[in-house]
Amino acid sequence: MALDLSVSSIDLTRQLCDLPSESGDEKRVADDIWAVLEKAPHLELFRDGDAIVAKTNLGRDRRVVIAGHIDTVPINDNVPTRYETLDGVDYLWGRGTVDMKAGCAVALLLAVELAEPTVDLTWVWYDHEEVSDALNGLGRLTRLYPELLRADFAILMEPSNASVEGGCNGNLRAEIRTHGLRSHSARSWIGDNAIHKAAPVLDILAAYEPRQVEVDGLVYREGLNAVGISGGIAGNVIPDECMVHVNYRFAPSRSAEEAVAHIRELFGAFEVEIVDLAQGARPGLDAPLAQEFLAAVGGTPAPKYGWTDVARFAGLGIPAVNYGPGDPMKAHADDERVAVDQITACEQGLRAWLTA
Amino acid sequence: MALDLSVSSIDLTRQLCDLPSESGDEKRVADDIWAVLEKAPHLELFRDGDAIVAKTNLGRDRRVVIAGHIDTVPINDNVPTRYETLDGVDYLWGRGTVDMKAGCAVALLLAVELAEPTVDLTWVWYDHEEVSDALNGLGRLTRLYPELLRADFAILMEPSNASVEGGCNGNLRAEIRTHGLRSHSARSWIGDNAIHKAAPVLDILAAYEPRQVEVDGLVYREGLNAVGISGGIAGNVIPDECMVHVNYRFAPSRSAEEAVAHIRELFGAFEVEIVDLAQGARPGLDAPLAQEFLAAVGGTPAPKYGWTDVARFAGLGIPAVNYGPGDPMKAHADDERVAVDQITACEQGLRAWLTA
Repeated sequence: MALDLSVSSIDLTRQLCDLPSESGDEKRVADDIWAVLEKAPHLELFRDGDAIVAKTNLGRDRRVVIAGHIDTVPINDNVPTRYETLDGVDYLWGRGTVDMKAGCAVALLLAVELAEPTVDLTWVWYDHEEVSDALNGLGRLTRLYPELLRADFAILMEPSNASVEGGCNGNLRAEIRTHGLRSHSARSWIGDNAIHKAAPVLDILAAYEPRQVEVDGLVYREGLNAVGISGGIAGNVIPDECMVHVNYRFAPSRSAEEAVAHIRELFGAFEVEIVDLAQGARPGLDAPLAQEFLAAVGGTPAPKYGWTDVARFAGLGIPAVNYGPGDPMKAHADDERVAVDQITACEQGLRAWLTA
Repeated sequence: MALDLSVSSIDLTRQLCDLPSESGDEKRVADDIWAVLEKAPHLELFRDGDAIVAKTNLGRDRRVVIAGHIDTVPINDNVPTRYETLDGVDYLWGRGTVDMKAGCAVALLLAVELAEPTVDLTWVWYDHEEVSDALNGLGRLTRLYPELLRADFAILMEPSNASVEGGCNGNLRAEIRTHGLRSHSARSWIGDNAIHKAAPVLDILAAYEPRQVEVDGLVYREGLNAVGISGGIAGNVIPDECMVHVNYRFAPSRSAEEAVAHIRELFGAFEVEIVDLAQGARPGLDAPLAQEFLAAVGGTPAPKYGWTDVARFAGLGIPAVNYGPGDPMKAHADDERVAVDQITACEQGLRAWLTA
């Protein structure tokens, strides 16, 4: 059954959520989105795998990308969706309602509706956001078709409670290792305890005072944390290795290289292996388009703490913000649910700006 | 094929090792030992499961227990045994040669040979030493038939390089836990990192100076070590629990209760769960029989650091020492092997003492 765009953005969200599209299984929902876009004569379409790009070509002097991913994390008995009311708030409950088919629905409705927006638009619906970086559909588009995404400003419809969250922190993970020598624990003086040697690693982490860094007017909170620790062979053996898995979230004013150097300096006495590294994105709220967008949708912009795909736009030199319905704390939760008035708010905010 | 006792204690060791008897599978070797003991008219036999007791009843005013376990840890391509020479030393190689069929062979040969020892003897061969405490054959005998083991002195033929190792350290294992609160690591300030809270646990362990305690003339080295550490849920989650697995080896002058109190005091700020506890055994070398035994076998007695079943005799009020062929560092090793002259030395040492 084809998508019905004669309904509200809330009901369209529900239609999209009730078409399961776990990462790697986005074809059907991509086909359905393509089918409705094809009927809009003002859009030029492009598809790569299950990533779809729809562009207006009105000759406006400015262009804006509005993007959202169509995949979800695995369903856990939370599809089909249902409406529910909690404490007087109306929600649409189910997988994908927050992350991020509500955003996709708003974008789809406006893409078809707005034949003559005040700026040229490049709408993007993409695949594989919830899995490894190498598979990410937006990453694939930026690598293979950077010209296709050329724009002056980008909006990523990641859940942000229908308010603007600028940029994002960078993300680094490292494995810090200590080494020792095994022995029987009845003769521990023959060995060399690698877990004991990890004491200063934990001391450094426990004493660390994360920075709060103002970047382009927003204050980013950093974080340095052990997210895992492991060591030990058996109850009677002195362990010869201990590994502390460290996660560093760093402000977008710090480059990935600077973040690595900071970690290597902090843990200079230990073996450090960087296992994941993604630069952050500056909020770019000083861009004229960003200022106009902020004025149109209202509210006070906040920093985005988690890493999101806005960093891919930042990597292309495009200022980008997060703006979408849904509480990010409910993303991936079994009780994932979006307050339906946030869907309406985003729809109205974007329409107001794009038609002003 | 029945055991052939006309050979040397070395060759008898080989016969016993080539009859596999991993813990739980001791029946055949127990049957074979029983069969040769049955032919010795000076011995009164008793059997419980695969534990065998053979007693002389000569009316001597003193009685000595000589015991060894007949089970081994799992075979790992190291049976059948073979003779080999390394750096000019002749070895018998294979599973059980050290731990502890060489000791069992010496005991079996002497049990049958010595019809009129200078003290009454209670020979014990028992099962399930290499597995859980609840299954231990000597433990079962001490619980069910304490009178059967009544004696003035005990020798456990645990590998000790054919020299006397007195008593043993106690052994305690504890799980030290810290607790926190989960959150997404992009918003770590909402959570409470349990791994960071474990820093002082490792600091205590790293700074701890283990005691060296003289007990009845022997100096026991203690040890306090992390033998394991674990914590963490995922690379982007602040962990809400961390567990440090601690092993405390304590001198036999310290009771099990005192050891527990020491650990609870050291880690008073943390959740402490005692998961294993075994009291040590004083060396008992001041006992007259021990002095005579030491004089007969010669050498300088040393402390036993690992926990052994001598503690079970200590629990019955019987002074007990470890004395057996084989390097304890080779016990359980894939290249387990016993220097054959240590087998002969133990045989001669015991015979000299028991016939003096």
